[in-house]
Amino acid sequence: MPISGVIPVAPTIFTDDGALDLAGQRRTIDFLVDAGADAICILANWSEQFALSDAERETLTDLALEQVNGRVPVVVTTSHFSTRVAAERSRRAAAAGAAMVMLMAPYHGATIRVGEAGARAFFEGVADGLSIPILVQDAPMAGVVLSAELLAGMARDIPNVQYFKLENADAADKLRALIRLAGDAAEGPWDGEESITLITDLDAGATGTMPGGVMTEVLVEVMRRYRTGDRAGAVELYERWLPLINYENKHSGLQTTKALLHEGGIIGSDAVRAPLHGMSPEIRAGLVAMARRLDPLILRWAR
Amino acid sequence: MPISGVIPVAPTIFTDDGALDLAGQRRTIDFLVDAGADAICILANWSEQFALSDAERETLTDLALEQVNGRVPVVVTTSHFSTRVAAERSRRAAAAGAAMVMLMAPYHGATIRVGEAGARAFFEGVADGLSIPILVQDAPMAGVVLSAELLAGMARDIPNVQYFKLENADAADKLRALIRLAGDAAEGPWDGEESITLITDLDAGATGTMPGGVMTEVLVEVMRRYRTGDRAGAVELYERWLPLINYENKHSGLQTTKALLHEGGIIGSDAVRAPLHGMSPEIRAGLVAMARRLDPLILRWAR
Repeated sequence: MPISGVIPVAPTIFTDDGALDLAGQRRTIDFLVDAGADAICILANWSEQFALSDAERETLTDLALEQVNGRVPVVVTTSHFSTRVAAERSRRAAAAGAAMVMLMAPYHGATIRVGEAGARAFFEGVADGLSIPILVQDAPMAGVVLSAELLAGMARDIPNVQYFKLENADAADKLRALIRLAGDAAEGPWDGEESITLITDLDAGATGTMPGGVMTEVLVEVMRRYRTGDRAGAVELYERWLPLINYENKHSGLQTTKALLHEGGIIGSDAVRAPLHGMSPEIRAGLVAMARRLDPLILRWAR
Repeated sequence: MPISGVIPVAPTIFTDDGALDLAGQRRTIDFLVDAGADAICILANWSEQFALSDAERETLTDLALEQVNGRVPVVVTTSHFSTRVAAERSRRAAAAGAAMVMLMAPYHGATIRVGEAGARAFFEGVADGLSIPILVQDAPMAGVVLSAELLAGMARDIPNVQYFKLENADAADKLRALIRLAGDAAEGPWDGEESITLITDLDAGATGTMPGGVMTEVLVEVMRRYRTGDRAGAVELYERWLPLINYENKHSGLQTTKALLHEGGIIGSDAVRAPLHGMSPEIRAGLVAMARRLDPLILRWAR
């Protein structure tokens, strides 16, 4: 069964002093399952993956799979610059029970990139001997340009490169080109970026979306309406909640889900890990006021 | 005793299939010591640090310190985006016997930067409780701008932030500004970038240089001449060898030292780790021909 629908990113939960908060992590995962997530993604950029040690990644992978306990599939991000390390991480995630791994094309810092041939060889190397599907993440953070032709070629030629999360500019047109070029080989054309482009991407053929974890239950209903032919109803619901997506995308960023998990009494601290810093009091107040008005499950689940 | 002089970067030695070659790593370290290095730096960008797992970093740190066995100081690169992880790495390196740690300001990918206040807080966090000096690496790869004022302020205010490796554009003018602003608090104003700007940086007051490992013995003699007042002799020797530095800096890159270690019979493979790829046959032939003409120790040491 292909994975589709709403696949929220679980934030990584820290204590105020920056240690992993494993109890808070478990409650966050339970909340996302209860909110109706079709699958859950861990260790994504929105999970501050770039601020974790290798050992912490393993701890969080094992914890998530244990806590989910088969209720929904789990997508584990295994990005690393090195083909060898990314392949090892991916095989370890598969062995631990991940349903899929997500990786960006290799990059490091401002200057190290490897081009399209290098990216293709990287994904071939990660796929080699891997038993689960790969989700290729096409994200601005990487600073890597992956053409629709490259993505479609990988979908056709590398058996487990089957999913694609497009969150660079022109995601909708690129989804359309990918679907045209790859056909059924691109089993999961998805979008990401907080679902800020969702309706246009659904129109382009997206079958999945990877938002933050703020309003999973709403996006599930948007997707249900769209899938059953009620596009107008999907658009109406989406546009009612768009201000919150826009606020996360433009103002409150990767701390958004944690701030509302904390506001809803689900976690004890919404700290991000230094050198990142939390949102300003003013931005937080705007977020909380907007969320109270819209009243997502995240504010009610633990009450 | 402050560390000064020539501090070459030890490349990380891999087998042809990308595994660590620990025996080759030991021979490389012995060669650099014999070539006269004043200290050795491991896990730098020129060591492909971005392609290593955390466990491999620890293996290589322990191996280097054991192999050097106190003959020269060892500088261990402990860069990581997270203050917490960078601090843990640094404390571990100190406990293992490192003389100094080197870190870039935090960065991730194309988009995540934390500004000057964030960089300062990062170095304060790493310095907290650390028993050895910190070398701040100001490198193009980070895509981070660190002003001379920021660097001098850290030198004055954070006791173990004492060394600065400047390898962005305008290194010489920035060294001069740093020395003017920080005085003795900047105990080690150094340059890097294969020592491609060495003479101008020495004129600006640099006391150390961090090149690759191709011609340590030559740069040691350049520094000796300069230090003893023979600037003309230093320039003459430097300019005779400049074509090789230029070739490394512009053509053969981080594989240069490994290619010549291999050519000299010191290591069995000069592979870089995928997704990086080795230099072309044409670039390699040009490198080897130039090195044979200049005849550095690296081609003679194992014979």
